[in-house]
Amino acid sequence: MLTNHILLDHGSGGKRSYSLIRETVLPIFNNPVLSKLDDGATLDIDGKRLAFSTDTYVVDPIFFPGGNIGDLAINGTVNDLAMCGAIPLYLSVGLIIEEGLPVRDFELILETMGAAAKKVGVDIVTGDTKVVPKTAADKIFINTSGIGKIPENVNIGSDKVRTGDHIILSGAIAEHGIAILTSREGLTFETTISSDTAPLPKMVQRMFSINNSAIHALRDPTRGGVGTALNEIAIQSEIGIKIFENNIPVREDVMSVCDLLGLDPLYIANEGKLLAFVSPDHSDRYLEEIRKDEYGKNAAIIGEVVSEFPGKVFMETAIGGSRIVDMLAGEQLPRIC
Amino acid sequence: MLTNHILLDHGSGGKRSYSLIRETVLPIFNNPVLSKLDDGATLDIDGKRLAFSTDTYVVDPIFFPGGNIGDLAINGTVNDLAMCGAIPLYLSVGLIIEEGLPVRDFELILETMGAAAKKVGVDIVTGDTKVVPKTAADKIFINTSGIGKIPENVNIGSDKVRTGDHIILSGAIAEHGIAILTSREGLTFETTISSDTAPLPKMVQRMFSINNSAIHALRDPTRGGVGTALNEIAIQSEIGIKIFENNIPVREDVMSVCDLLGLDPLYIANEGKLLAFVSPDHSDRYLEEIRKDEYGKNAAIIGEVVSEFPGKVFMETAIGGSRIVDMLAGEQLPRIC
Repeated sequence: MLTNHILLDHGSGGKRSYSLIRETVLPIFNNPVLSKLDDGATLDIDGKRLAFSTDTYVVDPIFFPGGNIGDLAINGTVNDLAMCGAIPLYLSVGLIIEEGLPVRDFELILETMGAAAKKVGVDIVTGDTKVVPKTAADKIFINTSGIGKIPENVNIGSDKVRTGDHIILSGAIAEHGIAILTSREGLTFETTISSDTAPLPKMVQRMFSINNSAIHALRDPTRGGVGTALNEIAIQSEIGIKIFENNIPVREDVMSVCDLLGLDPLYIANEGKLLAFVSPDHSDRYLEEIRKDEYGKNAAIIGEVVSEFPGKVFMETAIGGSRIVDMLAGEQLPRIC
Repeated sequence: MLTNHILLDHGSGGKRSYSLIRETVLPIFNNPVLSKLDDGATLDIDGKRLAFSTDTYVVDPIFFPGGNIGDLAINGTVNDLAMCGAIPLYLSVGLIIEEGLPVRDFELILETMGAAAKKVGVDIVTGDTKVVPKTAADKIFINTSGIGKIPENVNIGSDKVRTGDHIILSGAIAEHGIAILTSREGLTFETTISSDTAPLPKMVQRMFSINNSAIHALRDPTRGGVGTALNEIAIQSEIGIKIFENNIPVREDVMSVCDLLGLDPLYIANEGKLLAFVSPDHSDRYLEEIRKDEYGKNAAIIGEVVSEFPGKVFMETAIGGSRIVDMLAGEQLPRIC
C-alpha cells in the first residue's frame, strides 16, 4: 500500500481503492466469491441462486438537486443487485446518525427511502440505528444491503466478457458527480444539474425479456465513473476495450462545468446508468429495449471488446486520435456517494 | 418523538430508541416482516427460509480488552442470525474509514474479522469501503449484514413466547459494557474485565440438536442489556416475565464496578450471551446442552413466563422483594457497540 495511513484516495473507487482491496482485503477474507469483485456476490443456497450486495452512503451534502442520501442508498443497492442479473427482493438499512440531526431531516430521508423502495418493489425488512456524539460522524451515513433472486439462465459477471461484445451505455454521464460538486461548493450556473439517481432493475428486466444469455456483464459506473468501471472489466475479463468518444452521451451543461473545472466526465460518478456487455448480434435489439425505459432514453453503443491490449481501455477521440483511458488516479471528489 | 433533534438516547437501545423505531421508522417502511422487530428478518424465497440481519458497529475505543470492532462486527451479526434460528452462511462488510487511520490498525481489524468469520464458518462475500475526511467520522465504523439458512421445523420469534416458558440465560452479564466503559475512561481495577464478544451459532445448533420445536424465542441481550431485551419480548408476545435476581449470573468484579459507578448490570450490554424462551418440560435438557458449549458454562434458568402483568417484566429480588424491571430509559453508555 506504500502508506502508513489510510488516505481519502483509498476510497476514491480508483487505482488506490483497487489496490487496497486487492492487496489487503482479499488476501485476508480469502474466498472465491469475493475475489470476483463484482458489484455483488452471486450465491447458491441449496440450488437457489441469489445475489447479495452492500453499500454504505456518506454523500455530502445529504440533500442535493435530484435526490438525497435516502433514495441514493436505495437505488444504489438495488442497482448493484440488478448488475448481478438479479431481481431485487429485500433490503436492510443500517443508520449512523450524528447527535443533533434535525428530526425533520431524518423523516424526510426515511420517507424518500420508503418511496424509492416502493417504486422498485423491494421491502425493507431489517435495520439498525446507531447515534454517535456530535462530531463523531457527519449528519447521517446509511448502509443498505440487499438480496435478489437470479432468474434461470442468467449468468453474468465481469469475467464473462468476450472479444466482439458490444458495450451499451444507458444514458448521459457525470450528472451525479457534477450535481454533488456544484451543490457542495455553492457553484451556480445557468442551469441546475441534477443527480441522475434512479433505479435500474426494470431496465435490466427489459433486457432479459429479449434474451437472457446474450448479456455477459452489467456494471453501474458509480464512483470512478465509466472510465474506472471499464478498466475493472478489462482487467477481470483480461480483454481489451475500445470506446468511441463521439458516441458517449454527455449533456452540454455537464460538459461545460467539467471543462471549467478541469474534470474528465469519464471519471465522474453516475447513479442511474449502466454499462452492458452483450453479444454483437443482439446489441441493436437490447439498445432499442433500453431506450424504451424511462431512464434509458439516451442509451448508445459506445464501444466494443477487442483482442488487442488485454487489460486496457482505449478511446478513439472526437478528433480521430487514440488514447489510453486509465483507472482514476487520485481522488477527484470525496464523499460523492 | 417530542424532540426536534436526534439525541444520543435515540440510539441507546432503550425506551427512546424503541419509540423512534415504532413511531417514525415502522410507519414509513411499513411491512409485516420489519414490524416483528426481531434481531433479523425471516424471509421465504420460493419456499426456502432464510434469515437476513444487519448491524452497524461504532464502538469507541475500537480496540478493547477481549476484542476489537472487527470481531464484534462479525460475532454480532452471526449472533443476530442465530437468534432467528438460522445457520449463518454469508456476510457482507461495509466500511467507513476516517482519513488518517493507521494502516496497521486497519489490517489488524480485518485480520480479526477474517479469523472470527472462519471460526463460525461464514464467508465474507461482498463489501464496500468508503473513506471520509478527517473529523467526518471517528476512526472506523463497520456494517455487517448476513444471510443464514433456517432449518426445517424451526419456528422461533419474539411473538411466539407462551405462558409457562422457562427463560435460560447462557452466562454472566454486563461484561462487554463494563469492559468498554473501563477502557474508555481509563479506569483501572484489580482485574481487567474483558468483553464477552463471542459467536453463539454453535450453542444454538446444540439446542436444535435436542429439539427444534420447544424453543420459542431467542434473543441476544446487547445494547440495553438483559432488562431491555426481556421488555421487548414481553411487549411483543404480550406476556408477563418474572425473573429471579439470585439466579442471574454476574461476575463479582463486574458487580463491584457496577456498584461503584451506580450502574445496573441488567441494562449493560452483552456481546456473547443469549436468552432462550423454551418449553418448561425441555428446559433442563437445554440448559445441560448449553453448558457443554465453550461460551455457555455459566448458563442458568433465570425466570419464567407468567400470565400476570402482560407486557411487563418483574424481578424477585435477592432480599425477597419484587420490583418492576422497566426498559432502559436514557443513555447509559453511548457507542458501546
